[in-house]
Amino acid sequence: MTDAADPHFKRVALIGLGLIGGSLGHAMRRGKLAGHIAGYARSDATRKRAMEIGFVDSVHSSAADAVKDADLVILCTPVGSVGEVAAEIEPVLKKGAILTDVGSVKVAIFRDVGPHVPDGVHFIPGHPIAGTEESGPDAGFAELFDDRWCILTPLPGVDRDAVARLTAFWEACGSRVDFMEPKHHDLVLAITSHLPHLIAYNIVGTADDMETVTRSEVIKYSAGGFRDFTRLAASDPTMWRDVCLSNKDAILEMLGRFSEDLAALQRLIRWGDGDGLFELFTRTRAIRRSIIDAGQENPAPNFGRNPTHAADDKKDQ
Amino acid sequence: MTDAADPHFKRVALIGLGLIGGSLGHAMRRGKLAGHIAGYARSDATRKRAMEIGFVDSVHSSAADAVKDADLVILCTPVGSVGEVAAEIEPVLKKGAILTDVGSVKVAIFRDVGPHVPDGVHFIPGHPIAGTEESGPDAGFAELFDDRWCILTPLPGVDRDAVARLTAFWEACGSRVDFMEPKHHDLVLAITSHLPHLIAYNIVGTADDMETVTRSEVIKYSAGGFRDFTRLAASDPTMWRDVCLSNKDAILEMLGRFSEDLAALQRLIRWGDGDGLFELFTRTRAIRRSIIDAGQENPAPNFGRNPTHAADDKKDQ
Repeated sequence: MTDAADPHFKRVALIGLGLIGGSLGHAMRRGKLAGHIAGYARSDATRKRAMEIGFVDSVHSSAADAVKDADLVILCTPVGSVGEVAAEIEPVLKKGAILTDVGSVKVAIFRDVGPHVPDGVHFIPGHPIAGTEESGPDAGFAELFDDRWCILTPLPGVDRDAVARLTAFWEACGSRVDFMEPKHHDLVLAITSHLPHLIAYNIVGTADDMETVTRSEVIKYSAGGFRDFTRLAASDPTMWRDVCLSNKDAILEMLGRFSEDLAALQRLIRWGDGDGLFELFTRTRAIRRSIIDAGQENPAPNFGRNPTHAADDKKDQ
Repeated sequence: MTDAADPHFKRVALIGLGLIGGSLGHAMRRGKLAGHIAGYARSDATRKRAMEIGFVDSVHSSAADAVKDADLVILCTPVGSVGEVAAEIEPVLKKGAILTDVGSVKVAIFRDVGPHVPDGVHFIPGHPIAGTEESGPDAGFAELFDDRWCILTPLPGVDRDAVARLTAFWEACGSRVDFMEPKHHDLVLAITSHLPHLIAYNIVGTADDMETVTRSEVIKYSAGGFRDFTRLAASDPTMWRDVCLSNKDAILEMLGRFSEDLAALQRLIRWGDGDGLFELFTRTRAIRRSIIDAGQENPAPNFGRNPTHAADDKKDQ
């Protein structure tokens, strides 16, 4: 990898124009990273909206049309559908082009997309660790990737210059870039992203099912902590269904560990083990500080929900 | 309850000068709700700091000294210690004074404080549903209770005028006030606050224990969802130990339900039931919208972590 790699591509194809595809369009505009951005979305309304917002230069009703002549092709559809898309674009992928994706799982991407990559096309799967709970073409914005990590998982034999160019591209989109084995990526994301989403979906479901506490009470008193979980549980259902189906083994492993730990915590409560509870509640506190120090979290208390707090603090001191 | 109830008290005693005690001090200053605010904290450093910040008018090294002559006494120490404090202040509580608290459990408060309430003192336990993950005298701010609910749990026989005055006081602190049976309060809070905190502590503990994924990886890639949980898991360990020990039955009931639901979710994943997953992930989405509509959550995507987003949106449209 060389520092001199060019982050600019003549023609980029965005396959999928939702939160991530849209944010990539905005980030490419901001960094002047593409001569032409061709977009594909399944729905006519999404294509129309993407043109109105202006993060693409052209839209196409078939993925193959969008991919024609592209130097960089980025698959931004849910991971359950990338195999089908790959089969469709296989005949038109240009020799020398880079093919990448943004999916939350990587082993399944090699399995589903790999067989459709023609000789001479550089296949370098990727995953930006960034997002919000919103989806659709209006959800994207240029700063989404700023200071967030993007993990690339190239196989050992892949062209070094192509990897350097894709790295330079993500860095120009604001990201920091890391490299990982696909299998290790899936394990890391299972604990840092997939398990948190599943736990959030689960607790919101549990609260919604209560018969002794009404939904209106859950909503009114959600500031006691519950509301934090509703953000992840408002994420795109299709995306998360596909993640669960395509990273099954790692997710089941993490769910197993979580449940074991929860059973142990339940036992501490049942037996009134105050020291054991205090020990657990103390050691988890340090981790948030590390995440803030690593620049991966807003340092303001309560996620900055109390905007007047900072000003108030200053006045007091 | 009458609209004319006076929210102002001549002398208020704040027993405990941390996040909630401090915020009450600031809120009383803002609303000019107290002639004199007397503060008690166990540690000398906390008392000194509270005077420096200025949210109390006097500090005292014994709770009894702070409570002397007070018309309103607010217990703001962790729920495990309020019984002891109540025993100490029992001899000096003034006839006609209102005694309240801010604890996250209410049945245990009646059990521990109730026996120490002298005749002629109006005992009206309360619980403001507001907080941040910070603690200590520097963590408080005047706006903490604005638009948040405060639940009062007076027993049926208690003086109506006293309840009206305490209601007016909390409203003047910015809160909306609700009334509940103590037992029902503990059940509602078990699902809206206690379970979420325990789940957050548990998942952060699970991630911290991984041997195949390093702590540094967990921190770097936490923006995938994990970081959301670290906020609740950074809350005060003493407070949460006490909550677990004093609301055991309701918490164990909620943990049991959550675990059952998690087992069902695990089964959907193991058997690849995409429709079942999609159904769960869809119905949880609506709840966040309701919480935002109820004014209990920041409507900005990603908790407003991307401050430039709104500006960017406007530019695009």
